[in-house]
Amino acid sequence: MTNAGLLTPLYGAGAVAARLTDDEWVRALLDVERALSRAAAEHGFVPVEHAKRIADTAFAVDPAELAAASVEGGNPVIPLVRLMRAAVGDAASAVHPGATSQDVMDTAVVLLVRRAAEPLLADLRGAADAAAALAATHRDTPMMARTLLQAALPTTFGLVAAGWAAGLDAAARDLAARVDALPVQFGGAAGTLAGSDPAVADTLADLLDLPRQQVPWHTERTRIGALAGALGVAAGACGRVATDVVLLAQTELAEVSEGAPGDSSSMPHKRNPIAAVTARASARRAPGLVATLLAAMDHELQRGAGPWHAEWGTLTELLGTTGGAAARLRTSLTGLGVHPDAMREKLTGPDTGHAGTLVDRVLEAR
Amino acid sequence: MTNAGLLTPLYGAGAVAARLTDDEWVRALLDVERALSRAAAEHGFVPVEHAKRIADTAFAVDPAELAAASVEGGNPVIPLVRLMRAAVGDAASAVHPGATSQDVMDTAVVLLVRRAAEPLLADLRGAADAAAALAATHRDTPMMARTLLQAALPTTFGLVAAGWAAGLDAAARDLAARVDALPVQFGGAAGTLAGSDPAVADTLADLLDLPRQQVPWHTERTRIGALAGALGVAAGACGRVATDVVLLAQTELAEVSEGAPGDSSSMPHKRNPIAAVTARASARRAPGLVATLLAAMDHELQRGAGPWHAEWGTLTELLGTTGGAAARLRTSLTGLGVHPDAMREKLTGPDTGHAGTLVDRVLEAR
Amino acid sequence: MTNAGLLTPLYGAGAVAARLTDDEWVRALLDVERALSRAAAEHGFVPVEHAKRIADTAFAVDPAELAAASVEGGNPVIPLVRLMRAAVGDAASAVHPGATSQDVMDTAVVLLVRRAAEPLLADLRGAADAAAALAATHRDTPMMARTLLQAALPTTFGLVAAGWAAGLDAAARDLAARVDALPVQFGGAAGTLAGSDPAVADTLADLLDLPRQQVPWHTERTRIGALAGALGVAAGACGRVATDVVLLAQTELAEVSEGAPGDSSSMPHKRNPIAAVTARASARRAPGLVATLLAAMDHELQRGAGPWHAEWGTLTELLGTTGGAAARLRTSLTGLGVHPDAMREKLTGPDTGHAGTLVDRVLEAR
Amino acid sequence: MTNAGLLTPLYGAGAVAARLTDDEWVRALLDVERALSRAAAEHGFVPVEHAKRIADTAFAVDPAELAAASVEGGNPVIPLVRLMRAAVGDAASAVHPGATSQDVMDTAVVLLVRRAAEPLLADLRGAADAAAALAATHRDTPMMARTLLQAALPTTFGLVAAGWAAGLDAAARDLAARVDALPVQFGGAAGTLAGSDPAVADTLADLLDLPRQQVPWHTERTRIGALAGALGVAAGACGRVATDVVLLAQTELAEVSEGAPGDSSSMPHKRNPIAAVTARASARRAPGLVATLLAAMDHELQRGAGPWHAEWGTLTELLGTTGGAAARLRTSLTGLGVHPDAMREKLTGPDTGHAGTLVDRVLEAR
Repeated sequence: MTNAGLLTPLYGAGAVAARLTDDEWVRALLDVERALSRAAAEHGFVPVEHAKRIADTAFAVDPAELAAASVEGGNPVIPLVRLMRAAVGDAASAVHPGATSQDVMDTAVVLLVRRAAEPLLADLRGAADAAAALAATHRDTPMMARTLLQAALPTTFGLVAAGWAAGLDAAARDLAARVDALPVQFGGAAGTLAGSDPAVADTLADLLDLPRQQVPWHTERTRIGALAGALGVAAGACGRVATDVVLLAQTELAEVSEGAPGDSSSMPHKRNPIAAVTARASARRAPGLVATLLAAMDHELQRGAGPWHAEWGTLTELLGTTGGAAARLRTSLTGLGVHPDAMREKLTGPDTGHAGTLVDRVLEAR
Repeated sequence: MTNAGLLTPLYGAGAVAARLTDDEWVRALLDVERALSRAAAEHGFVPVEHAKRIADTAFAVDPAELAAASVEGGNPVIPLVRLMRAAVGDAASAVHPGATSQDVMDTAVVLLVRRAAEPLLADLRGAADAAAALAATHRDTPMMARTLLQAALPTTFGLVAAGWAAGLDAAARDLAARVDALPVQFGGAAGTLAGSDPAVADTLADLLDLPRQQVPWHTERTRIGALAGALGVAAGACGRVATDVVLLAQTELAEVSEGAPGDSSSMPHKRNPIAAVTARASARRAPGLVATLLAAMDHELQRGAGPWHAEWGTLTELLGTTGGAAARLRTSLTGLGVHPDAMREKLTGPDTGHAGTLVDRVLEAR
Repeated sequence: MTNAGLLTPLYGAGAVAARLTDDEWVRALLDVERALSRAAAEHGFVPVEHAKRIADTAFAVDPAELAAASVEGGNPVIPLVRLMRAAVGDAASAVHPGATSQDVMDTAVVLLVRRAAEPLLADLRGAADAAAALAATHRDTPMMARTLLQAALPTTFGLVAAGWAAGLDAAARDLAARVDALPVQFGGAAGTLAGSDPAVADTLADLLDLPRQQVPWHTERTRIGALAGALGVAAGACGRVATDVVLLAQTELAEVSEGAPGDSSSMPHKRNPIAAVTARASARRAPGLVATLLAAMDHELQRGAGPWHAEWGTLTELLGTTGGAAARLRTSLTGLGVHPDAMREKLTGPDTGHAGTLVDRVLEAR
Repeated sequence: MTNAGLLTPLYGAGAVAARLTDDEWVRALLDVERALSRAAAEHGFVPVEHAKRIADTAFAVDPAELAAASVEGGNPVIPLVRLMRAAVGDAASAVHPGATSQDVMDTAVVLLVRRAAEPLLADLRGAADAAAALAATHRDTPMMARTLLQAALPTTFGLVAAGWAAGLDAAARDLAARVDALPVQFGGAAGTLAGSDPAVADTLADLLDLPRQQVPWHTERTRIGALAGALGVAAGACGRVATDVVLLAQTELAEVSEGAPGDSSSMPHKRNPIAAVTARASARRAPGLVATLLAAMDHELQRGAGPWHAEWGTLTELLGTTGGAAARLRTSLTGLGVHPDAMREKLTGPDTGHAGTLVDRVLEAR
């Protein structure tokens, strides 16, 4: 919400944030309004030439002005529609046909989620690939297993890394499915499609390359809750690996080290696993945001009086912090140094059981 | 955690709680240990007759004693194994073969989740069915739609109830899938299956009628996170419907009323929609618990030093409160009185758009 | 909510749970009702002899029956009042005079919080004392400081332990203040004290040895929110120390060890710092519960339709888990073994700066 | 984190956000570094003329460059110190004397919290004043009390508004105390003040007009937890009032209305209480953020490996959303229309008990 751009790269959230700028919000809102006019035109609700004019007009939207104008009605669609109508002359009535603000906001949010999820999923999969590569390379590198952080019995680093990959893979799969399932939203003022038609909703979906809705879901937010849950799981899957890296990189263990460790303002000798540290920081910010979105499922009657508005900023933050965790973890794992000698020193025996077979299972299932 | 049995029925959590009593915990732990001995026997790791003796012994487990003995090692499996070994004579070494406490605890938790999910899912689906029945009956009953809690334009009560059903259906589907996907856990002390075999894990799964694991998931907790998310969504789907009921039952709207409204200690004239009120209460307790479980995904290395232990009580509470929300909502919806006359009074026009078609879509998709 | 007594001792929640049993709930509710009748009598609202009879009657309350009867009205006060009235003959109208259920529930909750806070605060202060004793003993014991879990520069174990004590002291002070500030609740059905008098509320407070209310706070829940925050901080102060213990007890550091380390079901050589591990587990369960209580501050108009009910179980859990964290941490610190030789091995230099002075400051300020 | 400036005004977070821009972050960091050099000079650790040069140098800091350079070490202080040293010639060694990054970050965060809390507290108190004014004006305006959203018995609007004021006053008092108590942070690399002196810390505090620290609190985060709790309570106090406004403004009650209600993109007749709606939205975003900060109290040993970094963005968001709730609520209450006729219509009797006396109590206690 606040302009803490200073911290965005540090949290690893840069790539996702670039998909969620004010300009991207405006672009998404305009994408929806233009597609809506065209869909309405295809079904005869507005003149085709009006929809074309709307499609062809380069609307001059100043985000700061739009932001200020959004306060009065509680969302940016109201002033945007006003601005669009003023710009298209007698095509004004073809702007926002049969729609309510929530149709446009929700569909724009779906577009933004899909766009922000691209780098997020790329980093999540990149981290998983890096973990899998470590698992393959170190399939048979023995190390001490630690339970409750006490030395236990031998395992292999390959099995550790395979476990990382398995979790990241599962999280990426689930998240991608949740993102892809988000449908278009179109119901009109009361959610009945009065003044429009279910077919317009379907055409709108097709034009935007989104799944069709079964029915409007203005206040049926299981999709948003499920998306939030999947983002929380993805952040958790990243944070857990980052914790392992930080623990194994401890001076006294020194079994792994980051490729580009951080320095310190007071101690030049430090070799901090800073990518993993900041991955942990970003991952830790997710669960509270998930809770906010789950609690905000209680949209009242035909439009939530607060819960709906709470979603926008929270979902934005959650995408950013989950993306940040994935990006920082990918950096950590991609350059990770593994130190078999340090691992060997602490071993108490040779029996690593079926670790190799288990590694193979994970790698084959990818 | 605390013995607040006094409030359990009020929160609607009775049916789930009955599946999560101390006795049920002990039963689940014994189920796993017995199956483990048998699975180990089938693969030649322990004598078959020892496994049989273990299966046939009626272990006298006093939950209070077991609880006290659990403190020292941090989980109830350690004293339970001791007790079992003492009870079976020379079959002692066939108890807990190749296993670590977490194998038994995690698999027992999976069993308990499945058992607790039965009444929970039954109530969730029962609430959905009640909503669907209301949608069918009132497919064309017009009422005022309210956005931001302000009168907007007409809709139908059928469409409102269909939206309820759609959310509850989606939540139940997802939750059932998450529960069904929870696999057996078996990895031994270091998660390598040293001293056992992957085939034992598969047989253990088969004996307990659980999905097989791909690899041990001692510290790869995406499954628990995903389960938590699905429970949170289910609670949210319930809470949102309960909020609608409470709002529509307001004295000034009086468009619905519960079949058995609650009384008051000070105002005998009150007709409180108490089932919906307590469904809201139970639903509100879920998001924070989901956040706890997501934050607890950061199990360290080969066994979490706290995050693991935090799961048990939290998951138990989350099952109970989600089950409670579903149970209370089912009660609210099953006996819900709908008052078309009160609805009609506030209407401003006849146009309910495509509400009927949308209702049909929801009902057909069930 | 569910009867997970099996896990209560393990989480350290036993002492708090003993103050929050069903019997204790019934006792607190009866304490309030009896004091209310007496306060009303003192101000002439009911006959003194009726209040005396109510005070002297041993009401036979079966918690399970009361629980079942609570469902209908959504709280246990309604059936309890019915039961009390039936038992006192013509003094019936002197039961619950001028009160609403929430007056009795809220005041009973205040009593229960005070009663449960006793062992909780004792354990919190006990843990702080143990930390302070370690700080005094090891004021000048040098050890390596670790930042981002990397060896940094020397510090002393005394300073580490002094920091633990400082946090625990601060948390205990704040929590005690929040608990002590919780006032009586008395407002009647609409919160106006119609049918009673502000003086009755003051007498009720005096009789129960509680702070007087300024005005009824049925739906003004800043006190509950502030209490939740203080409990969350206390849990956090415990969890952080427990994390340090777990880290310093790692096999590779071995700078501290618990007096009674836990064993393992599979590895007899393990010396797990299980008190600290379970303190961490209990501490981790607090933040989500705090969030639930903060989110539940939105009581609607004159009585919350769900948020109020959500408080009871959540606050109960939060007291239990915070108390558990304190109890387990106290155990961990009281018997903590400190190993100066192991500390010395990792030192890189002698300069521990002003650590001793800082230790003295903390100890003097206690 | 992400550049969602578009939504900032809508959430009411503008005034707080203006105190937390990148430029403000840089200013706060420079304020601390300059004061630190001067404090060190006063105690003879660096030459006075070097400290003066540092004070007088106008450092050219580009936030975007600083942000990019912050990634490597995990915080912006490291590159800032590098930049400052490069700019001051032979005074370079007088930059950052005896300090570690966390000293500067934590102290800068304290400055930023104080600066951001100014408009936040002004809005919180402004909202309280508006509520108190409503209470005074409508001390005896009768209206129906609603419990569980069912009509109960009469109260007065004055008592309702007095309850709002009481909660907002309590929250503002607590929050101000928490903010004012945040001390300077200065401990050096290992928290021992090696290479500096406790007196330097005190002078640093005095120069920055902050409370002195007792001892460094690098990983003793009860202060941050308590601040988070107070912010959560403030948000809750706002959200609860906003909920009441939204409920009383419902078309069917129409007992209050906002002075500048929002319009709609589809329904020009709508009069949405949009300030209250967005106050609710902002308030709802707080509890999850509080939970994140409480969970992040577990800083490890001498510097948190993730928990510390997680604080910055989360605290920033929490200040913004709490400030937003206060700002939007203040707008809602300041212009609130109260409709005694609509209130009177629903009354069932004249008895408003001691409502007037209770209003007086609240107003006198302010």
